[in-house]
Amino acid sequence: MGTPLTNLDRLCIHTITTKPWSLTQAMAGYAKAGVPGITIWRDALAELGVAGSAKALKASGLKVVSLCRGGFFPATTSAGRQEAIDDNRRAVDEAAAIGAPLIVLVCGAVPGMDLAEARSQIADGIAAVLPHAAAAGVKLSVEALHPMYADCRSAINTLGQANDMVETIRHPDLGVTVDVYHLWWDPDLEREISRAGRNILSFHVSDWRTPTRDLLNDRGLMGEGCIPIRRIRGWAEQAGFAGFIEVEIFSNEYWAMEQGKFVESVRRAYVQHV
Amino acid sequence: MGTPLTNLDRLCIHTITTKPWSLTQAMAGYAKAGVPGITIWRDALAELGVAGSAKALKASGLKVVSLCRGGFFPATTSAGRQEAIDDNRRAVDEAAAIGAPLIVLVCGAVPGMDLAEARSQIADGIAAVLPHAAAAGVKLSVEALHPMYADCRSAINTLGQANDMVETIRHPDLGVTVDVYHLWWDPDLEREISRAGRNILSFHVSDWRTPTRDLLNDRGLMGEGCIPIRRIRGWAEQAGFAGFIEVEIFSNEYWAMEQGKFVESVRRAYVQHV
Repeated sequence: MGTPLTNLDRLCIHTITTKPWSLTQAMAGYAKAGVPGITIWRDALAELGVAGSAKALKASGLKVVSLCRGGFFPATTSAGRQEAIDDNRRAVDEAAAIGAPLIVLVCGAVPGMDLAEARSQIADGIAAVLPHAAAAGVKLSVEALHPMYADCRSAINTLGQANDMVETIRHPDLGVTVDVYHLWWDPDLEREISRAGRNILSFHVSDWRTPTRDLLNDRGLMGEGCIPIRRIRGWAEQAGFAGFIEVEIFSNEYWAMEQGKFVESVRRAYVQHV
Repeated sequence: MGTPLTNLDRLCIHTITTKPWSLTQAMAGYAKAGVPGITIWRDALAELGVAGSAKALKASGLKVVSLCRGGFFPATTSAGRQEAIDDNRRAVDEAAAIGAPLIVLVCGAVPGMDLAEARSQIADGIAAVLPHAAAAGVKLSVEALHPMYADCRSAINTLGQANDMVETIRHPDLGVTVDVYHLWWDPDLEREISRAGRNILSFHVSDWRTPTRDLLNDRGLMGEGCIPIRRIRGWAEQAGFAGFIEVEIFSNEYWAMEQGKFVESVRRAYVQHV
């Protein structure tokens, strides 16, 4: 069981969590709320451009925790697979420019493609991007996605599979992301977190609502659902993880709120339930 | 890879699949379409009562394949757990009355209850019901549900977990149900089907739509989605399964159709894609 967090030192918010805000608004809003970390979704770079975002982030005093997201490697044509690799290399350049030490990989899947074939294409894609990432000083992190996304978002659906992939590729700049929303149900989770150990490069939180009204955009604020977040954080910390706790909430409901108030709710939920 | 099915001899439809139909309408509709098997959802017994349903089913010439559903064992109070056991015993009586050789168990979960605790309560519940089931000549079958139902429907979310439970309890009247909708994404599925072997008591089909618009009621007709149904059927048959193929589709879209036309679509999809 993780011990309660008594301050906000490890709190990070994903720009997608406050999707109605531009990057400029998010930087100001997080800083005002005393949130020290920010994870940048690539769409948030459009407002100021990569160089402009880099400059603004540096000036903001916020710590850039990661860039979301690379991946989506499987495709039905070799041109499609090459396009994905090229795009991931561009993501590496963006990460390096804005000072993000890490890119989270949503690995990809194509409806109807054999999942084993998709995994093989994912491994090839990661291997093709790693040299560029290593040269740029950017790590890559395999995020296992909930099995309900196995059709079109990721053929990697358990931490065990992510660990398998990372152990097979074996590269100092490749690790895994633990996201409680995707993994909480897994009876092997404690064991796989322990196995991942120092390979855990990032940790995402939100909660699973009952009922969940939408497969994509109905995540809960921590404490609103059934996920034993603090226990899972404890497992990650026992495995050696001491980094930021990243709040990644996709929610039509919360996106409809005034985002400053929502960030206050995130702060409260973080201290009470993470 | 399973060989194509050249006739309807193994086709069974769940009454929930044609939810707008009463049991009387379903019996007539399935018989008219040449569908030999029917799985009864308990709500379908309300129209004619248990004795009346039993008589009508016997007269229909349809084979009753199973009764859906028992389970939902976990509860926060001992009274709640006892109530679930009592209700499962009543389900056994209903199954025996209508000639259903099998009850499918949706094992249950309570939001916020530790999943390991829920599994322990499930094991206790099954053990408490088994003697009554055995005496009535009714088997019980553990159905693993998709991880997206781990919050409130089942703490058993992989066939591996169902196999664990069945092997631990070890009773000649206890087995597992393989439902492709719940299990298709699992990288261990082929191995776990082989492990289940003769313990596979029933086999459910539908398909996974992209996008899936609702967590509960947007299942696809076989062939409309990404599940390799025929391959999974082949694995089950290699493991020794030779029983009915049960079509279990919850779909707001199909429930809105004229159900006779929908049953024709089920027939076609069965021959082409199962």
